[in-house]
Amino acid sequence: MALRTALTEQLGIEHPIVLAPMGGVSGGALAAAVSNGGGLGMVGAGSGARQWLEPELQNLTGATDKPWGVGFLSWALEKDALAWVLEQRPHAVMLSFGDPSPYAEMVLKAGIALLIQVTDLEEAARAVDVGATFVVAQGSEAGGHGGGRATLPFVPAVIDAVGPTSVLVAGGIADGRGVAAALALGGAGAVIGTRFEACDESLISSGLREVLLDRKGSDTERTHLLDVARGSQWPSRYSARVVTNPFLDQWRGRELELLQDAEALSTYKAAAKRNDPAAVSIWAGECLDLIHEIRGAEGLVGELAADAEEQLRRALDVTA
Amino acid sequence: MALRTALTEQLGIEHPIVLAPMGGVSGGALAAAVSNGGGLGMVGAGSGARQWLEPELQNLTGATDKPWGVGFLSWALEKDALAWVLEQRPHAVMLSFGDPSPYAEMVLKAGIALLIQVTDLEEAARAVDVGATFVVAQGSEAGGHGGGRATLPFVPAVIDAVGPTSVLVAGGIADGRGVAAALALGGAGAVIGTRFEACDESLISSGLREVLLDRKGSDTERTHLLDVARGSQWPSRYSARVVTNPFLDQWRGRELELLQDAEALSTYKAAAKRNDPAAVSIWAGECLDLIHEIRGAEGLVGELAADAEEQLRRALDVTA
Repeated sequence: MALRTALTEQLGIEHPIVLAPMGGVSGGALAAAVSNGGGLGMVGAGSGARQWLEPELQNLTGATDKPWGVGFLSWALEKDALAWVLEQRPHAVMLSFGDPSPYAEMVLKAGIALLIQVTDLEEAARAVDVGATFVVAQGSEAGGHGGGRATLPFVPAVIDAVGPTSVLVAGGIADGRGVAAALALGGAGAVIGTRFEACDESLISSGLREVLLDRKGSDTERTHLLDVARGSQWPSRYSARVVTNPFLDQWRGRELELLQDAEALSTYKAAAKRNDPAAVSIWAGECLDLIHEIRGAEGLVGELAADAEEQLRRALDVTA
Repeated sequence: MALRTALTEQLGIEHPIVLAPMGGVSGGALAAAVSNGGGLGMVGAGSGARQWLEPELQNLTGATDKPWGVGFLSWALEKDALAWVLEQRPHAVMLSFGDPSPYAEMVLKAGIALLIQVTDLEEAARAVDVGATFVVAQGSEAGGHGGGRATLPFVPAVIDAVGPTSVLVAGGIADGRGVAAALALGGAGAVIGTRFEACDESLISSGLREVLLDRKGSDTERTHLLDVARGSQWPSRYSARVVTNPFLDQWRGRELELLQDAEALSTYKAAAKRNDPAAVSIWAGECLDLIHEIRGAEGLVGELAADAEEQLRRALDVTA
């Protein structure tokens, strides 16, 4: 028996598992692997820059005939970029971080499922106002950018706020136990980032992938510092969970000072350019404790779903 | 069908639900109500001061013949106080926050289940080293004192670290969905604080109880400030999640300054004495969004368990 939810039914996918559209991580190869595995693969398109996105979507659609999607940053997205993506006929578009209202109608008019990721209850209310097909409730355990609410109590609060719209669960999920908990909370699926980031098909270097194996959940922290260091325009309400490193240790709490130190900024940029783990942002969630190998994403999807089902049966003692 | 776990079997209780032994909240009446409802009621005994504890245990044992327990703060507990409690034959003792090793053997030798609450993986390893019967993995969503790990990813990490010892789940659970998630993660039960704090039988005043209904999860924060203000000896590694209030807004980030301001400290003490919600600590978890009424605890226990079972069945679509 498979786990059926509003997500699997509406998207026509096998398992209630979504690849988080992580910028710099979720390219066409990873998205195709997740879709081929029976989940919903999503490319992390950021602002939608066509030069990067077009070849990634070619990789993706050349490698799978299963449903797939694209995720954008609402604060950075250009309407032209969105229009072009909609012409490529994704099955789902996810909008995260910022106001989705300028884009929601375009997606819905194209007949494409609209996933809106939210980090607090105000964003959840806005997501249903603009017609979200699914609301993604993201907890602060998640790797990369996000807010300050923890997944376990936040998800039921979002479900109560947006019902009857279905809710997907993001933040802290890396194995079948987390997927089971997402469904037990009443979610229609799990959005998984870091576990897929530590897969063969992710866009990060193999060196950074090894860092994900070596470090633990307690080695991650939410910070604005790496956005400051790289001169990013990320809205300050969203911090990012990353693996701690010596650069963070050196500058933590001294963001303004760093901004005024041209030499330190240029040293950072050089280190980032060579992917130096002592300085560069490695997005990672608190679930790092649960990741013990780099592996292929395609087979992982079905295993996560099967493990989740087994956990739920065990909790109910149905097999006893 | 009831939910059976290592907790219900070993303690001989009906539902896998434990009252968090909250200091100043979980007295004999609340513990008796939870035990009578089929859970495990636990009195929050702090350092074990006999003058407070003796009448509360009389209330408790006069009101229930079901299993019950007592929780202590490991950093504050006196061995004499523990010895006296063990003579009262509780079914379980919970040790939280600090080194349990001076006390573990006394509890185990008395043939009493030893629950050790942990907030990180180092504490989890120590808990099994000293022979914990159950390890309670507490996430930072919890009201009152605790650590910095979020429940959803922390619990499976603790399960992997302490197996085959069973793990109970604390932090962020206020309804059947949270209990279902705790079991889906592989926990043997849910330890619930704030939801029971907002019950008729809790020790807090009805005025403070109403504050719990009025405020939301996003109105809570983890802080050391109220410990500083009341001159508490709490170890600095444990902050406390409380409802934000004007006193916190005024002094946030200025702990040292507050310590040196005798007038501000005396104003705080006067406000605390009259239970002024603008200043006093109101322990509350991020789950506040899920609490909509003050009610009796006894009936709540069975409802939480029934709702959890229903959530698990729905997730598996067993009834469809």
